[in-house]
Amino acid sequence: MSAHSSEPVAPVEAPEPPYYVAVFTVVRTPSQDGYGETDARMEELVKGIPGYLGMDHAQTPGGLGITVGYFRDADALTAWRTHAEHREAQERGRAEWYESYTLHVAKVERSHTFVRPPAPQGPTAG
Amino acid sequence: MSAHSSEPVAPVEAPEPPYYVAVFTVVRTPSQDGYGETDARMEELVKGIPGYLGMDHAQTPGGLGITVGYFRDADALTAWRTHAEHREAQERGRAEWYESYTLHVAKVERSHTFVRPPAPQGPTAG
Repeated sequence: MSAHSSEPVAPVEAPEPPYYVAVFTVVRTPSQDGYGETDARMEELVKGIPGYLGMDHAQTPGGLGITVGYFRDADALTAWRTHAEHREAQERGRAEWYESYTLHVAKVERSHTFVRPPAPQGPTAG
Repeated sequence: MSAHSSEPVAPVEAPEPPYYVAVFTVVRTPSQDGYGETDARMEELVKGIPGYLGMDHAQTPGGLGITVGYFRDADALTAWRTHAEHREAQERGRAEWYESYTLHVAKVERSHTFVRPPAPQGPTAG
């Protein structure tokens, strides 16, 4: 799933632990017919899962893609994993789009977010 | 940290749970002087941490970067987090290289790896 957005890019801020992360690391095949549409549809669907907290995505051109989904608890993750339309997309992914992937499901114990403070105003030049 | 390698790209295969993931999601500033050298040095150093299991990295050009480090246990992660040279790099990152980031530290409960089977040999054409 991609972050298709025209908003400024920023990482999802750390929710209050505990919560779950689903880390999906993938290399795709050259056959990507229909991938973009399905990806956008999944991004829409997951927002309807109670306990869904957000998603980060990065894609090295021609290389590895990483998607990290954040969920309040294991039930929220199960609801997403077993969603009928998501299961169909997973099957199609294995049949067509994915060369290899790993999924890691993990319970977050601690997290923090850093945001750069605004640059100090120096004395006016001139 | 980047995956600087000329080997074929593939996600790190799922180790046997439990293990830990450190998920680092970051947007960088335009000031990247010295970043590449430090990044390469950190990649070298982390390999010396007992219990380090591997790393995945993806970078959307001009957008989000995600690095996922895998560690056997919490002690391995602590050894890496508190490594003197790594701490210096973290400080320089906050001072110069990072616009914003989030770090999620989580214990993996389950994981699996998919690798595409070789394409079946069809009947010889012609």
